[in-house]
Amino acid sequence: MCELLGMNCNVPTDIRFSFSGLIERGGRTGPHKDGWGIAFYEGRRCRTFLDASPGCESEIAGLVRSHSVKSLNVVCHIRKATHGRVCLENTHPFVRELWGRSWSFAHNGRLKGVKRRPLTHYRPMGTTDSEHAFCWMLDRIRERYPTPPKRDRSLWRLVADLAKDLDTCGTFNMMLSDARSLYCHCSTDLSWLTRRAPFGEASLIDAEMTVNFAQETTPNDIVTVIATRPLTHHEPWQAMARGSLIVFRDGLEMWSTAA
Amino acid sequence: MCELLGMNCNVPTDIRFSFSGLIERGGRTGPHKDGWGIAFYEGRRCRTFLDASPGCESEIAGLVRSHSVKSLNVVCHIRKATHGRVCLENTHPFVRELWGRSWSFAHNGRLKGVKRRPLTHYRPMGTTDSEHAFCWMLDRIRERYPTPPKRDRSLWRLVADLAKDLDTCGTFNMMLSDARSLYCHCSTDLSWLTRRAPFGEASLIDAEMTVNFAQETTPNDIVTVIATRPLTHHEPWQAMARGSLIVFRDGLEMWSTAA
Repeated sequence: MCELLGMNCNVPTDIRFSFSGLIERGGRTGPHKDGWGIAFYEGRRCRTFLDASPGCESEIAGLVRSHSVKSLNVVCHIRKATHGRVCLENTHPFVRELWGRSWSFAHNGRLKGVKRRPLTHYRPMGTTDSEHAFCWMLDRIRERYPTPPKRDRSLWRLVADLAKDLDTCGTFNMMLSDARSLYCHCSTDLSWLTRRAPFGEASLIDAEMTVNFAQETTPNDIVTVIATRPLTHHEPWQAMARGSLIVFRDGLEMWSTAA
Repeated sequence: MCELLGMNCNVPTDIRFSFSGLIERGGRTGPHKDGWGIAFYEGRRCRTFLDASPGCESEIAGLVRSHSVKSLNVVCHIRKATHGRVCLENTHPFVRELWGRSWSFAHNGRLKGVKRRPLTHYRPMGTTDSEHAFCWMLDRIRERYPTPPKRDRSLWRLVADLAKDLDTCGTFNMMLSDARSLYCHCSTDLSWLTRRAPFGEASLIDAEMTVNFAQETTPNDIVTVIATRPLTHHEPWQAMARGSLIVFRDGLEMWSTAA
């Protein structure tokens, strides 16, 4: 299996604290040593850092940990290969362009039979069921909306329907971003937390690291972090309901299938 | 304007020496300080490092200079913005998927009126004429060949025709890779060099750096480097003919419009 980390904010925010916790699970505090990747949005495009080597010892992960990149939307993944060999082609997040925007996708779980679903527009480069599922979702979105729908809610509903469909193939914990929103679907394990004023301190579970967010933020900042398992002690992480999808924008839960 | 650097080899090769020369021109020995980017192929996918800050002082460029990434195909670009603001969306190389492969593209020059050409399949994320031209090329390739053509030569000929067409809009020095070959079109400035046994020494023009390739290679290695301007002293760089296109594969000139 794998672990996921996402962030969605109302002001560009540095994810290094959360990333430092997650990446330890990439071979040190967790077994997810078969590569890792992260996508940071800047406008309509995202910048990715990918590596097929274990996160805990990756030189590129070291750069991501030390170099501040501020972003409104981040999708991150550490991999424990269950399907498909360890190589760049099979490293999440996967990225494709639709409507002149980067869409990025990361997944945790197995999806049986998904590779038999025909694809029209987008093709996988690697051999994972995850990338095939991503291409299938984008095909459906593009088919239904050759240009962006007028109402955001129409897109949210479609993504939720597609996620629900894929969930029937097995386990579909996933994060998807279209450069504006972050979509999270929970099949078995996803927890989230919104940090906003008054900010306090937090300590990582996986590393000796504490941060005082009051010193790092302004009173208007709203930052939501979503992860397979909570990353910090003593913060009110809430588990997503199984089978639910939440759309985050501007750091807030904008819509969900539970609503 | 901008500068380009490409590499095509028969065995995965480290580009750090050439990159170290080029990146100096990103604000130190040259004026191309409006961002830089590099795409390294690993199989069908490429890994990119992109930064909108000057190459000569970029922390990410520092990583690329110090961290060995071996690749058969590399496309690299340093930017001096003439069209479109300085931001990630406008940073070359641009990347899109076709036939389950990453295609990457970098361009030097202005293309007047190219943004009026209609697009069907691929859409730009940024505002450069370069990215629009890339989307237009991929649209044409995809339209003609929904799946890869049986004969490589058919594709090479099509790419050459598209490049010739774009060249009529202004200046079209470009590098394109489809994960197998490297296509270089020279409108005004591109020079190239093939290194093979017996290997010797080379010294950069833009930095104090010398390498003895005999120590870094095996006798079977064939490495071609292509750049806007020669990067080293005392090596037999040859200028490409204006209006010509060369297809490199396995480190060799496989085909050209001059042939």
